[in-house]
Amino acid sequence: MINEGFYDLIYRRRDVRAQFNGGPVMPEVLFRVLSAANAAPSVGMSQPWDFILVEEVSLRTKFAEHVEQERVAFAGLLEGDRLSTFEKIKIEGILDSSMGIVVTYDAKRGAPAVLGRNTIDDAGLYSVCLAIENLWLAATNEGMGVGWVSFYKEEYLSQLMELPSHVRPIAWLCFGPVSHLEEIPDLERLGWQARRSLEHHVFSNKYGIEDSPNRWQLLG
Amino acid sequence: MINEGFYDLIYRRRDVRAQFNGGPVMPEVLFRVLSAANAAPSVGMSQPWDFILVEEVSLRTKFAEHVEQERVAFAGLLEGDRLSTFEKIKIEGILDSSMGIVVTYDAKRGAPAVLGRNTIDDAGLYSVCLAIENLWLAATNEGMGVGWVSFYKEEYLSQLMELPSHVRPIAWLCFGPVSHLEEIPDLERLGWQARRSLEHHVFSNKYGIEDSPNRWQLLG
Repeated sequence: MINEGFYDLIYRRRDVRAQFNGGPVMPEVLFRVLSAANAAPSVGMSQPWDFILVEEVSLRTKFAEHVEQERVAFAGLLEGDRLSTFEKIKIEGILDSSMGIVVTYDAKRGAPAVLGRNTIDDAGLYSVCLAIENLWLAATNEGMGVGWVSFYKEEYLSQLMELPSHVRPIAWLCFGPVSHLEEIPDLERLGWQARRSLEHHVFSNKYGIEDSPNRWQLLG
Repeated sequence: MINEGFYDLIYRRRDVRAQFNGGPVMPEVLFRVLSAANAAPSVGMSQPWDFILVEEVSLRTKFAEHVEQERVAFAGLLEGDRLSTFEKIKIEGILDSSMGIVVTYDAKRGAPAVLGRNTIDDAGLYSVCLAIENLWLAATNEGMGVGWVSFYKEEYLSQLMELPSHVRPIAWLCFGPVSHLEEIPDLERLGWQARRSLEHHVFSNKYGIEDSPNRWQLLG
């Protein structure tokens, strides 16, 4: 009953920067990947997501220039070892990838009475992220890479994509075939941040600190 | 190379309300499901998520009572056909499921310099949702059901779980074995909301309306 390949996919998936080869994306692959995204759960079944496929080089070049400015701004907050570690990290593959996929959130879709969004307005936003993870795993399944760029100002991307005011950009995903997927995430491999294992993240019945009695006892 | 079973999983996954059977959850199943969640991508590899396994019936009963109040409040906003359709929909399986999994977001983790969160503060929140979708798919893979309850006030759940002020509750997930998964989502089957197909959601290079020239041409 259990699909072992699914777990392989979960652990193979990477946030890709340097491994895009810019090759073509078959329309049927794109269709399967976007269909998987569109099959994600959403609050009140509002499906508040949209996907803009950005292939135009002029648009991607403008966005890449903006991202570079924001990268420099972030570097300006760092010092010493953190700065030199950060400088080794490639933060985007906007022009190296085959296309960008801008994922947006339409707050008006299904409104005013979205079932399940009356108490938690951000639930619509959460739905869009669930769709992104489906997209990401489907892309990995198809041998494609995805790299989520987050060094940008939302207002900039909204203007570039000519979004109406009720539509918010949630992600710029670099998308396309890759030479390979790294085994270790870049940020760990390059010494920015180590991964925390599961036992740090699970509690029983009440939130706690790591050595509290409500820490969940893992297997083994 | 492509894992066909993965797409089967994507389309079988449901937001479960009525099909929980309350049966036991094997620790190794829980371990695999939570490990899949913890393998999700996160901004700056901050892994800002935590999982509280809520088995205590007293806690679940209190939460169910709060959710019922919020359900009634939402019903009060509806009239006529919408109201009678809504009244047929079961909105939670808090006590029917085997446990609740409260997923939280720790805004301080990795701060102040979370790589990629300096321009978009919500990127941490987005990461938590990616983990939730991994959890959901892994649960489906294990024959478990997940039902995301969103009829609650965040402040209420924060107090119930004794969350510190920098930790925000993102989801209460009902979790456990199910009798079966419905083929059609409840909200569609019961006439609340039809699903929109992919062609309504995809544009080329610029956001558009459905009949705009930048509508993406789907296959076939």
